[in-house]
Amino acid sequence: MSTMMTISDTAAWLKSRDNYLILTHRRPDGDTIGCAGALAQGLREQGKTVYVKFNPEATPRYSRFINEFIAPDGYSQEHIIIVDTASYEVFPANGAEYIDNVALCIDHHSSNTLYAKNTCLDETTASCGEIIYSLLVEMAGGISKKIAECLYVALSTDTGCFAFANTTADTLRTAALLIEAGAPHRELNKQLFRTRTLGRVRMEGLIFSGLEFHYGGAVAVSSITRDMIESSGAEEDDLDDIASIPGSVEGVHVGLTIRELDSVNKCKVSVRTGQSVNAHSVCARFGGGGHPMAAGFSLDKPLAEIKETLLETLFEYLPQA
Amino acid sequence: MSTMMTISDTAAWLKSRDNYLILTHRRPDGDTIGCAGALAQGLREQGKTVYVKFNPEATPRYSRFINEFIAPDGYSQEHIIIVDTASYEVFPANGAEYIDNVALCIDHHSSNTLYAKNTCLDETTASCGEIIYSLLVEMAGGISKKIAECLYVALSTDTGCFAFANTTADTLRTAALLIEAGAPHRELNKQLFRTRTLGRVRMEGLIFSGLEFHYGGAVAVSSITRDMIESSGAEEDDLDDIASIPGSVEGVHVGLTIRELDSVNKCKVSVRTGQSVNAHSVCARFGGGGHPMAAGFSLDKPLAEIKETLLETLFEYLPQA
Repeated sequence: MSTMMTISDTAAWLKSRDNYLILTHRRPDGDTIGCAGALAQGLREQGKTVYVKFNPEATPRYSRFINEFIAPDGYSQEHIIIVDTASYEVFPANGAEYIDNVALCIDHHSSNTLYAKNTCLDETTASCGEIIYSLLVEMAGGISKKIAECLYVALSTDTGCFAFANTTADTLRTAALLIEAGAPHRELNKQLFRTRTLGRVRMEGLIFSGLEFHYGGAVAVSSITRDMIESSGAEEDDLDDIASIPGSVEGVHVGLTIRELDSVNKCKVSVRTGQSVNAHSVCARFGGGGHPMAAGFSLDKPLAEIKETLLETLFEYLPQA
Repeated sequence: MSTMMTISDTAAWLKSRDNYLILTHRRPDGDTIGCAGALAQGLREQGKTVYVKFNPEATPRYSRFINEFIAPDGYSQEHIIIVDTASYEVFPANGAEYIDNVALCIDHHSSNTLYAKNTCLDETTASCGEIIYSLLVEMAGGISKKIAECLYVALSTDTGCFAFANTTADTLRTAALLIEAGAPHRELNKQLFRTRTLGRVRMEGLIFSGLEFHYGGAVAVSSITRDMIESSGAEEDDLDDIASIPGSVEGVHVGLTIRELDSVNKCKVSVRTGQSVNAHSVCARFGGGGHPMAAGFSLDKPLAEIKETLLETLFEYLPQA
């Protein structure tokens, strides 16, 4: 059983120890990377020895914020810390050796399985970055510009630049404090939210042009073929959050994204819904699942066949039916 | 000459008078509409008689927030107030009769020409809504849910949901207070920033697919023909901020949008640039102008011809040239 720690407990715990290694979750996003960078910087400012272990190739967009903290070969830590990581399922592949030896987990997911020896959990924050902010202020009374930059990356990316439903008044207030502490929010917003790669532009052109509407516009389908990905030159990073596109069209209750995987006979399906349809229930019919408004499944069938079956099935779920 | 008024002067001025008519600027956006709604509501809560005059057809996206305040036929006001309106050039067409009789202008544009008898101006805010917030708190000590909703529309739309470069720590802090006062930020963010009309989707598909790159990717050109607008079914509202698309591609220094107007022989050109090229200088060459990073001009020539001339001209302005 994990020992639950408050911000103040966690600050005291970190101050009384040394020689840390910080891990991020698998397929690292801006929140886990920003938290790792901010915590590493904060601990160094307290005179501690600390490094981060993660795979920089997995996340070219964010790795530059923490490259300076990457653990050198042969670094031997005393204490493993992990940030923004709810369970073994999202444990980083290159951290498998530490899986039963995590001394401290700092997280904001309500699904946290309490796998670490000590856990500092706050399920009310939009990002793990908000917890790290409170922790570093508790430890040092304030934060440096470098910490502010890392935490702004964490808060802004986890909330879609403060547009997602998880954003709270506290998120905005913390972001204001980060800007005042020197976070270069103008440059970061431009880079993270207002810049598209050419691959992304090409993909969006194909997706927007190819959107199909059914049931009087209540259902939108985006079909993503291997050919489209190849011709657009899109990388995996460029496909980030692409499943949210069909559901973003006015009047659409169900947004479907069907994507061909390694073979044209294997597809991944993402279902995004409004309040009126339960995405999890729909996907459970095909052996998948997820959340009420975002779920998915994979199927060994060609795209056209999956689309037809799925559209038939949806008839039962639509409000008018 | 206009009398400059502080927030406190303006609050006292409003409290000691009655029977107001509030005007918005031409082609009203979320900031001017949100300010008009919040101010009308705030004044009514103080027992004042107040209405708003604007053209609801001009802005279907925002008019619902202030439809309840529209002035009835024959309303006879004592004092004209205008919000977020810098000069006669952006004065509303249906307010021309009041143009020399504005008692109070509340604005945040540094270009304000001080045309009103009294002016409450703060050039440091991202939105005029932040000034109205301070004013209403000064008058009543706090704000109602209805005011919070209107002001959230003002702040969020003028900052692109807090992603534009005008966003400050104070903007975020005020937005936090609006959420705490009851602004339904989740629903508003979804409606205003995460929903696309079908016309917009079709237009984005055509624009993204048709983007052309020149000078090794440093210049991106978006050509918007009358045919594209017609076939997509896009309304004017759907073309909002469409000129920012070419400049949003990674590596692009100059984003050009050339749009056919009523005739294929008349086009409007929008130029968006990074730090390296002065958009105003480029446009001044063609009889237009604007700001260093956003400028424009119109020309009575076919699209293809304008594109060729403009690309040739740009050679002089690009850093490598």
